[in-house]
Amino acid sequence: MPRVTDDHLAARRRQILDGARRCFAEYGYDRATVRRLEQTIGLSRGAIFHHFRDKDTLFFELAREDAERMAEVAAREGLIQVMRDMLAAPDQFDWLATRLEIARKLRNDPAFSRGWAERSAELSAATSERLRRQKQAGRLRDDVPGEVLRTYLELVLDGLVARLASGDDPQRLSAVLDMVEESVRQQAGQS
Amino acid sequence: MPRVTDDHLAARRRQILDGARRCFAEYGYDRATVRRLEQTIGLSRGAIFHHFRDKDTLFFELAREDAERMAEVAAREGLIQVMRDMLAAPDQFDWLATRLEIARKLRNDPAFSRGWAERSAELSAATSERLRRQKQAGRLRDDVPGEVLRTYLELVLDGLVARLASGDDPQRLSAVLDMVEESVRQQAGQS
Repeated sequence: MPRVTDDHLAARRRQILDGARRCFAEYGYDRATVRRLEQTIGLSRGAIFHHFRDKDTLFFELAREDAERMAEVAAREGLIQVMRDMLAAPDQFDWLATRLEIARKLRNDPAFSRGWAERSAELSAATSERLRRQKQAGRLRDDVPGEVLRTYLELVLDGLVARLASGDDPQRLSAVLDMVEESVRQQAGQS
Repeated sequence: MPRVTDDHLAARRRQILDGARRCFAEYGYDRATVRRLEQTIGLSRGAIFHHFRDKDTLFFELAREDAERMAEVAAREGLIQVMRDMLAAPDQFDWLATRLEIARKLRNDPAFSRGWAERSAELSAATSERLRRQKQAGRLRDDVPGEVLRTYLELVLDGLVARLASGDDPQRLSAVLDMVEESVRQQAGQS
């Protein structure tokens, strides 16, 4: 038998994650059954769940990858840039829609909610840190607590995903993001 | 056999709609199966679908009732007041979450999307009309097209539903709505 190298392991994990992302994107969270995961990934459930404990673990790992990538952009350019990137990548809409489909589960399943919160913590932290620096630089309004600004931006992100997933016009949504950007900026001096 | 009166018909329709709303709220759109609808409503599928053609027709009628009620508030007090009412009625969260669960279906099922758009048209029209009157009265900013303002408010509504359904703190979301209200107002004279 060939030795299972780290490269081989990493490639196998990648294959599973890429297939699972396609499966969730196509069928949505609930309808991405184990059978459909097997078909999209091209491996048996035994092989899949040797690497990831269960469907939720797979889903969380995909969410963690997203959060990591979005946190990088948010730390450098802010959460609004993360949203502009979403508008520019229409092939991601179906996957993004899964974020909405888990809202009910987040409210009703404490273990799932904890797992999700852990994966989203990095993005929240990056957003908070960026807001802190923008405030120090005098670019952010200072009449509203940072926590409220962060909640506002996170709410807009969820709303954007919902409107995109429903088929709204990206160009008009882009004009909405301009409004959002202006509304978190320092207002002094504005006429 | 007793004559089926209009009152009797109306009561039966009400029974079906109320049960269906509870069923969608508890199980979500996809998992509200015909079997579960029968159980929550307390009638056979034959009796239910005598009054409403299918599950989607039932769902649309509930959406139409919502839109009608929300349009009344939106016409009188604006869409932000509709959102404040949502924050004040936590028992509605589970039902509201179904709005998010249909985003994928709206994108991928043209007939469903048309049906939904017809039911939401009344609310959109009420919101547009209210925005027009507010602009005339000089209470609305005039540097952003009305269509963009309406899309902004609809995006915030979807985002609010998502954050509520995920279990966010209503008090902080209320502070976010204050920001939103300010950002659509006439800015002239602000320091």
